[in-house]
Amino acid sequence: MERSIKISENDRAVFNNRVDFCVGTGRMGLALQKEYYEQLKLVQKEIGFKHIRGHGLFCDDMAIYQEYREDPRNPDSPCHVEYNFTYLDLVMDSYRELGLRPFIELGFMPKRLASGEQTIFYWKGNTTPPKSYEEWCRLVRATLSHLVQRCGEEAYEYPIEVWNEPNLPGFWYRADMKEYFKLFKESFLAIKALDSRFKVGGPAICGVRDEEWISEFMSFCRSEGLKIDFVTRHHYTTELPEHSGHYGYAKLMESEAGFENLKTTRDIIDSFPEYRGLPIHITEFNTSYIPNCPIHDTNLNAAYLGRQLSRLGDVNESYSYWTFGDIFEEQGVPFTPFHGGFGMVANGCIPKPTFYAFKFFKQLDGECMYKDDDAIVMKTEEGYKICCWNICPKGENKELTLRLLLPGSGEYSLVTSTVDESCCNPLKLWHDMGEPSSLSDSELSLLREAARPLIGSSRIAADGELSVSLTLGRNALVYAELKKSSLTPDRGYDYERATTTL
Amino acid sequence: MERSIKISENDRAVFNNRVDFCVGTGRMGLALQKEYYEQLKLVQKEIGFKHIRGHGLFCDDMAIYQEYREDPRNPDSPCHVEYNFTYLDLVMDSYRELGLRPFIELGFMPKRLASGEQTIFYWKGNTTPPKSYEEWCRLVRATLSHLVQRCGEEAYEYPIEVWNEPNLPGFWYRADMKEYFKLFKESFLAIKALDSRFKVGGPAICGVRDEEWISEFMSFCRSEGLKIDFVTRHHYTTELPEHSGHYGYAKLMESEAGFENLKTTRDIIDSFPEYRGLPIHITEFNTSYIPNCPIHDTNLNAAYLGRQLSRLGDVNESYSYWTFGDIFEEQGVPFTPFHGGFGMVANGCIPKPTFYAFKFFKQLDGECMYKDDDAIVMKTEEGYKICCWNICPKGENKELTLRLLLPGSGEYSLVTSTVDESCCNPLKLWHDMGEPSSLSDSELSLLREAARPLIGSSRIAADGELSVSLTLGRNALVYAELKKSSLTPDRGYDYERATTTL
Amino acid sequence: MERSIKISENDRAVFNNRVDFCVGTGRMGLALQKEYYEQLKLVQKEIGFKHIRGHGLFCDDMAIYQEYREDPRNPDSPCHVEYNFTYLDLVMDSYRELGLRPFIELGFMPKRLASGEQTIFYWKGNTTPPKSYEEWCRLVRATLSHLVQRCGEEAYEYPIEVWNEPNLPGFWYRADMKEYFKLFKESFLAIKALDSRFKVGGPAICGVRDEEWISEFMSFCRSEGLKIDFVTRHHYTTELPEHSGHYGYAKLMESEAGFENLKTTRDIIDSFPEYRGLPIHITEFNTSYIPNCPIHDTNLNAAYLGRQLSRLGDVNESYSYWTFGDIFEEQGVPFTPFHGGFGMVANGCIPKPTFYAFKFFKQLDGECMYKDDDAIVMKTEEGYKICCWNICPKGENKELTLRLLLPGSGEYSLVTSTVDESCCNPLKLWHDMGEPSSLSDSELSLLREAARPLIGSSRIAADGELSVSLTLGRNALVYAELKKSSLTPDRGYDYERATTTL
Amino acid sequence: MERSIKISENDRAVFNNRVDFCVGTGRMGLALQKEYYEQLKLVQKEIGFKHIRGHGLFCDDMAIYQEYREDPRNPDSPCHVEYNFTYLDLVMDSYRELGLRPFIELGFMPKRLASGEQTIFYWKGNTTPPKSYEEWCRLVRATLSHLVQRCGEEAYEYPIEVWNEPNLPGFWYRADMKEYFKLFKESFLAIKALDSRFKVGGPAICGVRDEEWISEFMSFCRSEGLKIDFVTRHHYTTELPEHSGHYGYAKLMESEAGFENLKTTRDIIDSFPEYRGLPIHITEFNTSYIPNCPIHDTNLNAAYLGRQLSRLGDVNESYSYWTFGDIFEEQGVPFTPFHGGFGMVANGCIPKPTFYAFKFFKQLDGECMYKDDDAIVMKTEEGYKICCWNICPKGENKELTLRLLLPGSGEYSLVTSTVDESCCNPLKLWHDMGEPSSLSDSELSLLREAARPLIGSSRIAADGELSVSLTLGRNALVYAELKKSSLTPDRGYDYERATTTL
Repeated sequence: MERSIKISENDRAVFNNRVDFCVGTGRMGLALQKEYYEQLKLVQKEIGFKHIRGHGLFCDDMAIYQEYREDPRNPDSPCHVEYNFTYLDLVMDSYRELGLRPFIELGFMPKRLASGEQTIFYWKGNTTPPKSYEEWCRLVRATLSHLVQRCGEEAYEYPIEVWNEPNLPGFWYRADMKEYFKLFKESFLAIKALDSRFKVGGPAICGVRDEEWISEFMSFCRSEGLKIDFVTRHHYTTELPEHSGHYGYAKLMESEAGFENLKTTRDIIDSFPEYRGLPIHITEFNTSYIPNCPIHDTNLNAAYLGRQLSRLGDVNESYSYWTFGDIFEEQGVPFTPFHGGFGMVANGCIPKPTFYAFKFFKQLDGECMYKDDDAIVMKTEEGYKICCWNICPKGENKELTLRLLLPGSGEYSLVTSTVDESCCNPLKLWHDMGEPSSLSDSELSLLREAARPLIGSSRIAADGELSVSLTLGRNALVYAELKKSSLTPDRGYDYERATTTL
Repeated sequence: MERSIKISENDRAVFNNRVDFCVGTGRMGLALQKEYYEQLKLVQKEIGFKHIRGHGLFCDDMAIYQEYREDPRNPDSPCHVEYNFTYLDLVMDSYRELGLRPFIELGFMPKRLASGEQTIFYWKGNTTPPKSYEEWCRLVRATLSHLVQRCGEEAYEYPIEVWNEPNLPGFWYRADMKEYFKLFKESFLAIKALDSRFKVGGPAICGVRDEEWISEFMSFCRSEGLKIDFVTRHHYTTELPEHSGHYGYAKLMESEAGFENLKTTRDIIDSFPEYRGLPIHITEFNTSYIPNCPIHDTNLNAAYLGRQLSRLGDVNESYSYWTFGDIFEEQGVPFTPFHGGFGMVANGCIPKPTFYAFKFFKQLDGECMYKDDDAIVMKTEEGYKICCWNICPKGENKELTLRLLLPGSGEYSLVTSTVDESCCNPLKLWHDMGEPSSLSDSELSLLREAARPLIGSSRIAADGELSVSLTLGRNALVYAELKKSSLTPDRGYDYERATTTL
Repeated sequence: MERSIKISENDRAVFNNRVDFCVGTGRMGLALQKEYYEQLKLVQKEIGFKHIRGHGLFCDDMAIYQEYREDPRNPDSPCHVEYNFTYLDLVMDSYRELGLRPFIELGFMPKRLASGEQTIFYWKGNTTPPKSYEEWCRLVRATLSHLVQRCGEEAYEYPIEVWNEPNLPGFWYRADMKEYFKLFKESFLAIKALDSRFKVGGPAICGVRDEEWISEFMSFCRSEGLKIDFVTRHHYTTELPEHSGHYGYAKLMESEAGFENLKTTRDIIDSFPEYRGLPIHITEFNTSYIPNCPIHDTNLNAAYLGRQLSRLGDVNESYSYWTFGDIFEEQGVPFTPFHGGFGMVANGCIPKPTFYAFKFFKQLDGECMYKDDDAIVMKTEEGYKICCWNICPKGENKELTLRLLLPGSGEYSLVTSTVDESCCNPLKLWHDMGEPSSLSDSELSLLREAARPLIGSSRIAADGELSVSLTLGRNALVYAELKKSSLTPDRGYDYERATTTL
Repeated sequence: MERSIKISENDRAVFNNRVDFCVGTGRMGLALQKEYYEQLKLVQKEIGFKHIRGHGLFCDDMAIYQEYREDPRNPDSPCHVEYNFTYLDLVMDSYRELGLRPFIELGFMPKRLASGEQTIFYWKGNTTPPKSYEEWCRLVRATLSHLVQRCGEEAYEYPIEVWNEPNLPGFWYRADMKEYFKLFKESFLAIKALDSRFKVGGPAICGVRDEEWISEFMSFCRSEGLKIDFVTRHHYTTELPEHSGHYGYAKLMESEAGFENLKTTRDIIDSFPEYRGLPIHITEFNTSYIPNCPIHDTNLNAAYLGRQLSRLGDVNESYSYWTFGDIFEEQGVPFTPFHGGFGMVANGCIPKPTFYAFKFFKQLDGECMYKDDDAIVMKTEEGYKICCWNICPKGENKELTLRLLLPGSGEYSLVTSTVDESCCNPLKLWHDMGEPSSLSDSELSLLREAARPLIGSSRIAADGELSVSLTLGRNALVYAELKKSSLTPDRGYDYERATTTL
């Protein structure tokens, strides 16, 4: 397929690029791991996010909430609470070393503080309300106070979200809306009493009964007079998965349906005059919502993300990809390096194609001149930055050629970075290797080599109109930079002579 | 062009792979530099040579040979010699850190010990005989003794070559053969007297009057009863360069002529019964012999090296590429990162295509089954290793397809690494950027990204005959590994489903 | 106190220095952590052990043993077992990167394979026999086979120990000896059937009813015809602790009583002709056996270790300090960096005084000339190596001066490294800082600076008898090297003039 | 000797701490070296300077100024100039990586641009005026323009100094004042014409006829209407050296005489109304002015520096220690690691005692309450920072005890870092080792260990008056921090019990 796109000097399009505001992570206890750290280090070095959000701050492996008997040998002696911040410090130190701040999620419930036994995931996060809201609020305050003491004033700027997906019974006992609102209010008031600079929001729901939950949540806040700082929700865009062994196969939905759904949230909030324009953070998004869906490892996922990243800022303040890496245990420990995990990076520090969707969009600064379903064009001081993609789901195999006509005169250098099924497809290489579960050093090294964009370049001369043609193979994602560039050969250097006559 | 090559189980070809025995370097004083170290570190990490050889051990910047007056204020007081090994230690420590041992070249002459004023190169190496052979021999012995003390017993294994290219008047005053033989004999005897374990050789000539020099040298050694340990010579394969500004443009010679020339050296030596079979080390080789010939940076150079590396071991013990990196000052300091320097690595630690010729050949272990002008095939325990190339000099543009039919049954994985003008061509990217002399961080980073092989893969099933087809673009160099490999999918994992139905 | 020790040329003493054979670690799952890795890296860089041994290979956090239903939605469908080696690979890769091989401990029981609910420790290791010995043996074999596949032939040399301290009811249900012998026999036979090169031993007991257990174990092995490869036991040398809050305070026992206890094990084994001389590995030793005894962080511990390390090789093949670092969770997550943990290294990568006991003994090569309760003297090619200590328990405060008279002539350099309460005492600095639970960067940096030996030196001239005087403050541990050394001043350099006249 | 010093709440003293503004370095070409980089990296990591200044920007090894013939084969064809910034970029990139900006010194003369043959130093810097001032100005402008292009706007803030020590005939042909003023004026005007934001100063003189030079220079600038941005001079404080072999032995002068000399420069400048208060940069200072004076390596040098660093800011804007490291070739390549070089760091990356004078003063923030010949006391938010020293020249051996009485109440922690002859004296260790010229790895490692301050600590309680006693051995330099600090023991932790009863 070929498309011609002509862009004029004063063309402008809406594009709120918040690609680097936040990224998701598995539970906080995993942040102690070395492989986790190395994956995150790679992500931060090559992309660079500002915040990180995940579950499990209060889960027992983080060991924050502790109880003890005054007389350990007498089970009837009074019981006291103490807090242990040893592991929290290790995690926060790692994050800060990597230039990250937490987007705090309050949850789940420490076992000893829980009112029930219900847990979620392989790692058994307790998802019941606290047995004492007073003790819960003490825990929240103590933790935030400790963060302020450890990290300084910047801790007041860490956004704080109350719980995760309370609209699902697995994540919140019976998905009890009233009980969640109580949790929210108690937490909100306790935090604001500690210091009004903290920013607090909710309800962190996913797309199940979402309109009802958002409406009721906003009404509740209004009726209670809670001046919340932001609203949060999640966004996944695949159909129900079909399961087979360790895996679930889920088909992609049309992006547009998702964008409409997000718009309804925006509209509901804006319908409350007190909350009009309140920031919405999408604190989780991805294609599939299961950590064992092979789509996450594909070039299709990367191409699809191109369109997502061009649109998710339309009505939202931020959107946090779930997750940066594949150290993740919700369905247990994965058996193989490529297992359809949520991560941008596979275990072994192998970037997946999707990694580059974030890397490319991170570079899209300047002013947006044009945006459509296949491409986005930015104007910069030195020229243009372009990202385009060719989404081919369900076995579709089309080639897409974009001819961009841009204002410009003089000489330009065009440099393209291409991620597609033939040049940056570590999943295919791993498959062709036989799908080994344990990688040898040389296999690992090859997979990393195969997980890099192909760089192309050319020189283009223009006289008023600059014509650039980009051809995208199946599920390609292409980033291109056009820069004004004179040829400045050194004395006696002649590239043509060097490459065609010797 | 298409070629079919059928290889049978018991086919064998001669291939002495000494690709990693030695690599060349600019003068030793440059080994103190940080950028030099970083380029060498890259080379050692990705390729890994055993020895390193270059000029300038005794040049004044290494500061080994020192003279002083007994009374510094009285120019008539006796003059004494002292040795300073501070810089030599720094250089040797760097080499040893990187797993390298020196291939020692004795030269050039310290200014204070020289009999004349003649120098060579921008860095003014003195190329005249010593004013005192006794003092020269003391210097040689002191230096070797120091190396033994510092590096231990392994220092006895460092090969020692006397001087460099004495058959050129620029490198040795008047190219005086008799004087060189004197230098050789004095040095040889002094070293062997110190410890007979040292290995000493010469005459380190290039291809000018080489037959005469080799004959005379062998005759001289025989008549003097010198049991030399090896013979050395150099090998360059371009025609005379045409100069323009900072550059020289030199056309490639046919490889075959060069191989014949090398054979004559072998034959002359073997004609001396005492020296029959004596090892020949090619202590320098490259295409062009000037450090400002743009060919060194091209894909053509890499493809041409493919053939060279498959043949240079035929009659020689080793062959040392001149040089590993572009920190090099013989014609002055280069003005731009790509300037036709000898290096496998351009300044900025950018691998040139040629870098991969060495990396690929380093991996060619196993038994050689087949070798021709375009390809070499090795049999390994797990399958096959193949290297092939498509040399297109003087603007030629042909595509080459090799169909290899190999013995084999069952499932195989094929992984290819391709270096060609479209996928691993940093020179072109730099040109398209406008040929900047100073690289910004982002330009440097892009150039490094563009200097990597493209990885491809597939699975092949065979029933007795394994058919592999490799297509090589202009000046391509391809390395391929075929390994026996069963598909071992994890429970429920289906690659086809993942990549064609979601 | 002053002591003179005169040593003659031919004096010799028994000293089997196995200080670096093995070191202990908390459960294997913790080896995934970054802080664990960094502590271990420090230990390996500065000391360098060969093996590492700890609990928890089969605990659920390592995720090796997995069960699943054929039809996940039908709880009555057949249940199958599968193995997951993802985390085991990560751990083994870390170990191998750091030059370590595992000393494998088989245990504890995966929850799904256990016959009961009894667990031990904060991290809930299941300590009941398998519900199926056949399934247990399959697990053991699969794990070992995987290690061979991943690590190569060297895996056959990893020593394998069956379970841990089965003589304690907490570690093995009811401390049931007969059941342990069954576990041992089944495991032993399964492993030897897999490959007879594997080395297998037990019973890994601690010092409770140890004579009885060793006797019975040897008898059992004899009667069953098990050609075991080694015997293992543990060795702790404090009295019962008194508890207070998070801590236990335990007084040191006299070393000698411990050495006698170890001798009884040796004697029992040697009383079995079939097993005479069989190697005994002390797979755990330390002063206190609880991970919250403040003694571990003191200089007293280091000085006491001096004597231990000089003696533990007398009748044993090796002795593995429990543990290298303080990432350890048996009693929960520690609240402060110094908490009396077992480690040689405190959290934050701060070496404790004990760290240097190992570093110093690691350097004690050569021939042992002399050994007593305070000192050990080795003869080397270049001179002497000495380690001495001044154990001051229970508030004792004595100074010890050792005057060593050694054979020697000529000039020597003496270099001493001193670890004592005034110069290498990070615990005291931390206390003086106010005992902070969270360390700032500058506090951490100071603590590391304060955790280094003080280096002293002098030149000694001797004429037949070399006299060295070493003064040890309270709980000092001193390492000294005497080397033949001529003064080789550079031309014109005069140290006395430089330091006393300017 | 004992001294009591009582300090009251409102006591204040003058102390302009500019310790980190600038540091000196050998010639710029040496900045290409790896060992140079590693020494500078250590200095920047532990101390952290803002600028770096040294000679040799325009020396031939930097290769900036190049001439060529239009027709290389015709020596009569026109000659052109071209500039090569390859090495300058490498140096600047290193500096920027390490957080440093240049304090630019314009000099010396490229050989091809020089009017004469006079050179200085082993490395032969040409010290004659340009043969063409126009060409010189072109060179200066081209270099500065390149720096702006490469480093951005920050390049306008690099201070620029014209030449070095023109008042010495060795550094400037005949020490011709008039010619220097011409050089200054031409350079000044050329730079300001390029961009008036550049800051330019001179005359960079040392203490020979300094009053005359400063007076004449200011008069010249006034009469020419040059609005110079700052004045520069040097400051060395030893008497004439006595030479012996490679070394010179120079006795220290009294500091006070030096401070008075500096005051005269200040007074002369301030006597010009147009230039009153103009910043004076001491662009070089040290004790001895020769790079082979053993005093630089001693503890005496460090203690003496204590007093210098407390006073040099009194009338000067900055003071740049000559030099950071011992890669330095003015008198040739040193023969041994300790050779009396200027550096804070000896070759092998061994910090000398003087290194810590800078590290300690770098930490002296807060308000100065007290300063005398032995000590300086700063008040900070958390307590106090103190630096004190005990200068013992010419073999003197006195102990100094300072009793400081400071305002304060409550509990404090005192942490001291001591650098003295017994605890941080790598020179002595090296001497005791026999003064080896080549260091083995273990010798090097020991020397680094012996080059660290001894850390001490205690807790002090105060009730209105805080009493701190610091005892300084021979040539000690001590840094102390007093901080408010409550003891916060963990539940059950009792340090006394742990260290006196077990």
